[in-house]
Amino acid sequence: ANVQDMECEINKEYSVQCKRDDNEVYMPFSFIQKYFEVYGEFQNTDGYEKFEFAHSYSEVHQPPDVISPEGAFMSFEHYNVEIRKRVKCITAIEGVPISTQWEPAGHYYPIQIAQFALSHYSKYLREGEPETVSLLDGSNSDLGAWLTGVNVKVTSVWNQVRSSRVVEFQTPDALSNPGLYIHLKESIYALSMDLKIVSNGSISVTLKNDGATFHVHYVFSNTLITCDGKNIYYGLGVDRQDEWIHFARDADMDLLKGLMLKCSKYKKLNGLSLLGVTIRGHGVVDNVTLSSAVHMDHFFDAANWFVNHQDRRGGWPIMVTRKLIAGVMELQPGWYSAMAQGHGMSTLVRAYLKSKKSVYLRAAINALKLFEISSAQGGVKARFANSYDWYEEYPTTPSSFVLNGFIFSLFGLYDLKQVVKEEPLETVTRLYNEGIKSLKAMLLMYDSGFGTFYDLRHISVGLAPNRARWDYHTVHISQLLQLTKMEDDPLFSRTVKRWQEYMHGIRSPHN
Amino acid sequence: ANVQDMECEINKEYSVQCKRDDNEVYMPFSFIQKYFEVYGEFQNTDGYEKFEFAHSYSEVHQPPDVISPEGAFMSFEHYNVEIRKRVKCITAIEGVPISTQWEPAGHYYPIQIAQFALSHYSKYLREGEPETVSLLDGSNSDLGAWLTGVNVKVTSVWNQVRSSRVVEFQTPDALSNPGLYIHLKESIYALSMDLKIVSNGSISVTLKNDGATFHVHYVFSNTLITCDGKNIYYGLGVDRQDEWIHFARDADMDLLKGLMLKCSKYKKLNGLSLLGVTIRGHGVVDNVTLSSAVHMDHFFDAANWFVNHQDRRGGWPIMVTRKLIAGVMELQPGWYSAMAQGHGMSTLVRAYLKSKKSVYLRAAINALKLFEISSAQGGVKARFANSYDWYEEYPTTPSSFVLNGFIFSLFGLYDLKQVVKEEPLETVTRLYNEGIKSLKAMLLMYDSGFGTFYDLRHISVGLAPNRARWDYHTVHISQLLQLTKMEDDPLFSRTVKRWQEYMHGIRSPHN
Ligand SMILES: [Ca+2]
Ligand SMILES: [Ca+2]
Repeated sequence: ANVQDMECEINKEYSVQCKRDDNEVYMPFSFIQKYFEVYGEFQNTDGYEKFEFAHSYSEVHQPPDVISPEGAFMSFEHYNVEIRKRVKCITAIEGVPISTQWEPAGHYYPIQIAQFALSHYSKYLREGEPETVSLLDGSNSDLGAWLTGVNVKVTSVWNQVRSSRVVEFQTPDALSNPGLYIHLKESIYALSMDLKIVSNGSISVTLKNDGATFHVHYVFSNTLITCDGKNIYYGLGVDRQDEWIHFARDADMDLLKGLMLKCSKYKKLNGLSLLGVTIRGHGVVDNVTLSSAVHMDHFFDAANWFVNHQDRRGGWPIMVTRKLIAGVMELQPGWYSAMAQGHGMSTLVRAYLKSKKSVYLRAAINALKLFEISSAQGGVKARFANSYDWYEEYPTTPSSFVLNGFIFSLFGLYDLKQVVKEEPLETVTRLYNEGIKSLKAMLLMYDSGFGTFYDLRHISVGLAPNRARWDYHTVHISQLLQLTKMEDDPLFSRTVKRWQEYMHGIRSPHN
Repeated sequence: ANVQDMECEINKEYSVQCKRDDNEVYMPFSFIQKYFEVYGEFQNTDGYEKFEFAHSYSEVHQPPDVISPEGAFMSFEHYNVEIRKRVKCITAIEGVPISTQWEPAGHYYPIQIAQFALSHYSKYLREGEPETVSLLDGSNSDLGAWLTGVNVKVTSVWNQVRSSRVVEFQTPDALSNPGLYIHLKESIYALSMDLKIVSNGSISVTLKNDGATFHVHYVFSNTLITCDGKNIYYGLGVDRQDEWIHFARDADMDLLKGLMLKCSKYKKLNGLSLLGVTIRGHGVVDNVTLSSAVHMDHFFDAANWFVNHQDRRGGWPIMVTRKLIAGVMELQPGWYSAMAQGHGMSTLVRAYLKSKKSVYLRAAINALKLFEISSAQGGVKARFANSYDWYEEYPTTPSSFVLNGFIFSLFGLYDLKQVVKEEPLETVTRLYNEGIKSLKAMLLMYDSGFGTFYDLRHISVGLAPNRARWDYHTVHISQLLQLTKMEDDPLFSRTVKRWQEYMHGIRSPHN
């Protein structure tokens, strides 16, 4: 080969080592990758090796064919909220994620809780009914598979309230006690049951992981999650005796979140297998089931959280400090988010349509109120150039105009608009229409000609534009794809086409 | 060497041939150049060859240290308006460029005429007095160097009006006649004289170029420019007898524009030399001079054009169709440009300060009127989001919001503001302040995070952003550098720093 080394001088500032072959110069990818923010990796297929150059790294998911308040939410079936590092765990008290983002001690982040709800809802629609193994339905026949320790009473009894046979049990409640126990070897990990505890009690799941045996214990305490060697503990709450509890957990996820607390050398799931379930204490139990998933249980847990934690302003206040730009754009604990309000609506409207319980719909309607209140007055409404209403994911002053959060808030309004009448319908229609008007007028402000901006901080405060990294860019694209199905305006289809081209390095024209 | 060929697959769409050396992949510059819009060339210094990679191609010029209405205009001393291909020629009737941009037949483009004025004005300030060779000052002693044909009368006489000796001449006026002639061998090409023709006459310059002899003839016709073999003709106008004309031409430029008409095989200047000057007809002449430049003559020719061609609305209408986006953003002949109005002001204010003639100042003040009239009503004022006034280089409906033209219009207002009083001062101050307010609010809308936008067409009509190519980007930078000296707002210095970094491939942050 006639290939020689050659110095490449970059912008007269520094040099990198290139190769030259005749009149072609070859530049090293280690330089290109960093300089142009692109990606690449070797791919070996049947011994043939090539280099795959990629302009961007994120994948675009298609929204549902028909946008419906009963349907999947955007492409959220691809989300896995709870696996994210910034989710400490799914609490066993309310069954919702707790976030360590911006606050390592953990806080309830309504956006995350709604995404948890909507992703499980959408997964349910996509996957259909889960695979299940019934472990105990209250009849005597099931009990044959269960073992007990000494001094344990187990009886199948008729329960008037539930109109079903249930199992009454009475065992010592120390976790060291074998209780009422079933040996299993399963590779599905969602455990659910209906349970009423008379005095103290607990549920434990035994799992084999990475060759070791772990126990995940669910106990009547208020500690969210803790660990001790290979034992992981979730609190079910202290005041939940004498009421029927619907218990539904992904034991694999609960184990994983426990491992992340680092009480043992084990850090990840590997060769997992479910070895058994233990029930202790004194109470009644029914419908003990292993499933491949308990999506709808998670969904309703989260929907109920929205009902139970809505404040008198109709909002779900976020109790952490949020600094978009330190000293310039900050939110103090107690702020509301239009995205949380909108996501809450999308969750609550689906819960209403599935359950027909009006408590969900009332909460969704209440969530509208903050859309009418300006950021300066503690609401979520910003105004661009005194001309366009904007519902703020982060209602900072000056305004930040985050695009994806605004569009998600519109999706919430859109969902609610389909299911209400009379005065709430008028309100939500007006809010939605104003929002869409703003979006149409301002959408192109987010177009950088080779990608998108995450927000308009540069216009608000005259600082550097905040370019959206590719995974936010793909969220923008998914949102526009959905908008093409909601709104009859070629703006959205034209723009999304170009935004998709940006992912392949195609730029907008220059003059 | 261990270098091997390797396939690089680009975005899973197509492949290019790369090189591999151990774990480094080298991509061909022919691909990089096109894909990333960058530049590169081999540089050989004393036998050492390297490859110079350049992110951008355009150079930033610094504005004057102090911005003054009497000073250089921005960095226009670097402009050479007349050499541009789209300048057909500098007319000999009025001494201004005629543009073939958007209209091959040619038209008077006030922006180009003002840039011609301001570049020569700024060059004059930069270069100081030109090098000159006096050929004839009206005295008998100079006449010794001149030759005449037969039947030629030449006399030095006292001229009352000019209070100076001048030369009266009477020769046959056919261009074939040698007339009053001087042999030269000079490498400066600006010819000037004061001339009054009684009956017909002409001036010719003989130049040697590329080994051939060319004649540039200035004749009393209305034909702007024409050619015939190696003869090039410029019309001085038909009705200019019996008045003193100040003649001032760059003969080299006049030759070049003639060559571009393609009457001969010669296309460019090469080994140029000025061989002689001929004066014919019947008239009086004085101050025949060769100079290295006649910048201030060009400047005042252009300033006079602005006085003579201002219409009753105070504008300089542009008589061509301008299509920013065909069918979407178009201007019909007769449109005004805020940039033309502002550039006109900057020219006229300088002409006023140099000459103390109030006719220039009155014209500059008249040019304000169109700033108050909206684009829809034939003026130049647009409005962004019903909140910000914007002076339009191209006052299309919908608005285009071209950045550089707007800032140039502010420079015009700034210049005028320094020299007027009372009512015009109030008006121009209000217009300037409104403009600066808009600029501060909207400047960052032009920041793409890796370059700038030329206009806001994408926001106005929802089409692809129009990225500014690097030479417009550097105009933006030069303008911001000037604004840092005009306005005490860190926005401008902060922004221009980033815009300069973009030229070296440094992007704004992403989230
Ligand atoms: Ca039962
Ligand atoms: Ca004289």
